[in-house]
Amino acid sequence: MTWQQIAADKKKAQLDAVPKDWLLNEADLPKQIDVSSCAHSSPLLSPLDLEITESSVSVLLGNLASAKWSSLQVTTSFSKRAVLAQQLTNCLTEIFIDRALARAKELDEHLKKTGSVVGPLHGLPVSLKDQISIQGLDSTIGYVGWIGKPATENAAIVDILEELGAVFYVKTNIPQTLMWLETFNHIFGRTTNPHNRTLTCGGSSGGEAALIAFKGSPLGVGSDVGGSVRVPAAFCGTYGFRPSYHRIPYRGCANSLQGQDSIPSVLGPFSNTLDGLTIFMKAVLSKRPWLKDPLVVRKSWDEDAYSLVEHGGPGAKLCYAIMWDDGFVKPDPTVRRGLEITKKALEAAGHEVIDWKPHKQAEIGLTTLKIWASASEEDGATVAALTGEPLVGSMDPEADIWQKRPMMAGPLSAYQLWQVQKAKRDLREEYLDHWARTVKETSTGRPVDAIISPVAPYAAPPHGKSGNIFYTIWCNLLDYPSVVVPVGAKVDPVLDAKQPRTEFYTEFDKQNYEKYDPALYENAPLSIQVVGRTMEDEALLAMTKIVDDALQATAL
Amino acid sequence: MTWQQIAADKKKAQLDAVPKDWLLNEADLPKQIDVSSCAHSSPLLSPLDLEITESSVSVLLGNLASAKWSSLQVTTSFSKRAVLAQQLTNCLTEIFIDRALARAKELDEHLKKTGSVVGPLHGLPVSLKDQISIQGLDSTIGYVGWIGKPATENAAIVDILEELGAVFYVKTNIPQTLMWLETFNHIFGRTTNPHNRTLTCGGSSGGEAALIAFKGSPLGVGSDVGGSVRVPAAFCGTYGFRPSYHRIPYRGCANSLQGQDSIPSVLGPFSNTLDGLTIFMKAVLSKRPWLKDPLVVRKSWDEDAYSLVEHGGPGAKLCYAIMWDDGFVKPDPTVRRGLEITKKALEAAGHEVIDWKPHKQAEIGLTTLKIWASASEEDGATVAALTGEPLVGSMDPEADIWQKRPMMAGPLSAYQLWQVQKAKRDLREEYLDHWARTVKETSTGRPVDAIISPVAPYAAPPHGKSGNIFYTIWCNLLDYPSVVVPVGAKVDPVLDAKQPRTEFYTEFDKQNYEKYDPALYENAPLSIQVVGRTMEDEALLAMTKIVDDALQATAL
Repeated sequence: MTWQQIAADKKKAQLDAVPKDWLLNEADLPKQIDVSSCAHSSPLLSPLDLEITESSVSVLLGNLASAKWSSLQVTTSFSKRAVLAQQLTNCLTEIFIDRALARAKELDEHLKKTGSVVGPLHGLPVSLKDQISIQGLDSTIGYVGWIGKPATENAAIVDILEELGAVFYVKTNIPQTLMWLETFNHIFGRTTNPHNRTLTCGGSSGGEAALIAFKGSPLGVGSDVGGSVRVPAAFCGTYGFRPSYHRIPYRGCANSLQGQDSIPSVLGPFSNTLDGLTIFMKAVLSKRPWLKDPLVVRKSWDEDAYSLVEHGGPGAKLCYAIMWDDGFVKPDPTVRRGLEITKKALEAAGHEVIDWKPHKQAEIGLTTLKIWASASEEDGATVAALTGEPLVGSMDPEADIWQKRPMMAGPLSAYQLWQVQKAKRDLREEYLDHWARTVKETSTGRPVDAIISPVAPYAAPPHGKSGNIFYTIWCNLLDYPSVVVPVGAKVDPVLDAKQPRTEFYTEFDKQNYEKYDPALYENAPLSIQVVGRTMEDEALLAMTKIVDDALQATAL
Repeated sequence: MTWQQIAADKKKAQLDAVPKDWLLNEADLPKQIDVSSCAHSSPLLSPLDLEITESSVSVLLGNLASAKWSSLQVTTSFSKRAVLAQQLTNCLTEIFIDRALARAKELDEHLKKTGSVVGPLHGLPVSLKDQISIQGLDSTIGYVGWIGKPATENAAIVDILEELGAVFYVKTNIPQTLMWLETFNHIFGRTTNPHNRTLTCGGSSGGEAALIAFKGSPLGVGSDVGGSVRVPAAFCGTYGFRPSYHRIPYRGCANSLQGQDSIPSVLGPFSNTLDGLTIFMKAVLSKRPWLKDPLVVRKSWDEDAYSLVEHGGPGAKLCYAIMWDDGFVKPDPTVRRGLEITKKALEAAGHEVIDWKPHKQAEIGLTTLKIWASASEEDGATVAALTGEPLVGSMDPEADIWQKRPMMAGPLSAYQLWQVQKAKRDLREEYLDHWARTVKETSTGRPVDAIISPVAPYAAPPHGKSGNIFYTIWCNLLDYPSVVVPVGAKVDPVLDAKQPRTEFYTEFDKQNYEKYDPALYENAPLSIQVVGRTMEDEALLAMTKIVDDALQATAL
């Protein structure tokens, strides 16, 4: 069989897995670019389905635990909405709703019989990025060569979420190799942005973000080695969290660049409300994941840290610093406006907001790219060679799929790689010192508490145009946890009008400026990221809650 | 200048740094092989000097804090004994006693003036392995090419120990490149074992172990990437600790294999009593080292873990498992006897002791060696080329120094290295599962609490014969913290007589058997290591105290 046939068979099997009566006729599918609210006009979803799928994780868990809503009901509602999301944005890979409904029933019976929940996520549907292995299902990460090789065991995070009470029902789409900021592969095709289907949903956890943004899942798990949780969360207007290295177990996930130990990929949650991310972290850490995955740091959820003991204590005035641009590519007016809204909201809430001085942001990004590129081409080629499928060379829908992906660096010897990794360590040390020195610029007596930065120099761009990784990748090299927060606004052709500029940092900056036109970004959400120091995951979530509350207070 | 001249000048400068009236005439130096007690017959040391230098760290700190002993006195006593150790075992590199005495005086004045100590290590002399940088001093790690390049800033651990009140006075000898289990380089020469100078002190922190064993330092800091704290601690009969990755800050130390991120070297303490190691860990962690070194895990000293909450609580019966051999090279009778003594002592103290089933110990060792060898030759050659000095090819005193070191693996591409690193991760996962399964074999309801293992298949061997790294290296790949404990016995020609064997695991096993003769190991101490799970440093120290107390109760 050719790789095309293998891929087509897999795609057909996917369609076959969808309950037939939930499929709309092609002719009945909405045609508009913004499908984010289409669930409301769909015959598939009842008012209860809509109420359930638009509830926060806290509300869902409360109603599941009190048996106001059964898990069967909740799982059915999210499954229907996920199938609709799939038809409109093509965001799924594996679909296994039968299995989910059976599990939901078991959980309902358990609750009925014992009067108690199996765990803090009792009955909650949770979606998973394709790479997260579930026994008996494929984890192709978009490689045709990995079709029909079902996982022989669960990833550690799957075992843990299951112990916590989660119900799995779908896995979500990714780019082939996972190493793209968009979502396309030869098996499942392209995932689009529910706010505007001519725009990318971002990547690599693009299917996850599109599904969550469509409210086809209350809580999802993606991964981030350079921005793969945060870029799609920002482009789709959801919340996404990149935790510090080695807090959430990665064991048993399919991946690319395996054995690359220097800048590890991390799993992180997506949700439509911040509480979803915090609940996820607390719940997973409560299961002592270091007993299941040797790479996980033995460090429980730290409630003291969450109450900000090291940041002046609960209720203290904080100092946030905004990185308006990285000195490499100036963000578009859309992105700047998101930061300005955030600054105003925080000041209105009584916090200090100063400017963050970027420090070698481009060098940090390039160093990361060099580490990846030391062996990424051989890594991808080895898997592609299993069937002869081409490695994706461009995400542009018009591009030749056989073209070679342009690389910013080339393969290295182990000794050369060590030299780059040494430079990486030096950059981490410098940045730590850079941050510590901000104690002189704040009024709190502490260094800056958290940094606020763009997630990309643009809002969700048209397909094929999401290439700048520099606004997220610095957190991966420096191991800074980071939460993406939607600002609550969308691109506005008037407010975000193009401003004249004649001087540019770099050629990349100029290109980005030249291609900007607010009309291209119609309806794209504005988002920011809040960045904390290594292993300050708990404090960062608390400081992000302050940002999020401030933004919501402004919006009211 | 030739590299020989540069090295000779450095060695001469070292001698010049020793206070002249502390130097014995060559003719007056003891000639016996066992010099471990020579301090008692030396005119250099007064009874008070002897009392001080034979006190535990707890006693020293108590008497320093109460001003019973001034830091000047304590520093002088240890400095004298260190100089004697240097003349007898050649264990030092940088010697800077003037600087130390000035610092000690300042600390004494501070205590007198304020009535309080500057920190928990107030006034305590602390020795440092050569690689640990002190501003203004060389850190050559035995490379002639790094002579005359003094550190421009302190290593993070130096800043922290200084804040805690430590007094630095000497740095200690290492093998060129640090990647040997013995201690010899072209600048400072060879360090010998104070218990028997025809035997090696081990390496790479060999100078540190020899100095501590001679009681020329109460507390020292070494490093361990494959056994470099533990092998010398065992060979010299002192306590040594290899903590988990990233608990003690490594920032600013000279090193080889820099940029090798997969199996990091860690700093760890040496002392003649276990309390020294525990005090060191608690004190360093109290300074929140993650604020100084971005690689340090944000994880405070965990007193709950130290009180063994996860091991049945204080006073509970524990289950230790002994790895009698690794299935690759059977330990000599000397080593087995050390384990037997430990088993009896623990059982007498009411604990359970079962057998540890080795799991792929050789594969784990070889995987580590492959990771190092992926670039170690180029790494060493690059520094050696600065002056043309040869890389040490053998530690045998009779060997040709120009011979090439035999390697068990060769240089790799980055992609090949990733494949080995991936295999490493798989081994860590397997070993975690292997350990977890022991829950079925214990009577405690828990998996084995800690493993007890040989540190090498032999006690301290003659110079040039310390080549087997497999009994320590598994802890480095698996990131298992490990404490070396002297058993309180020495090699005995009768008790440790050679036993007939006709079957062997491997050629290495046969060679080790054939070379065994208890007479060769005269006076070598017997030691064991106690091994805990990743990041269980606190619990491991507590479980090691139980082992140590049991051994001492047996000895009484």
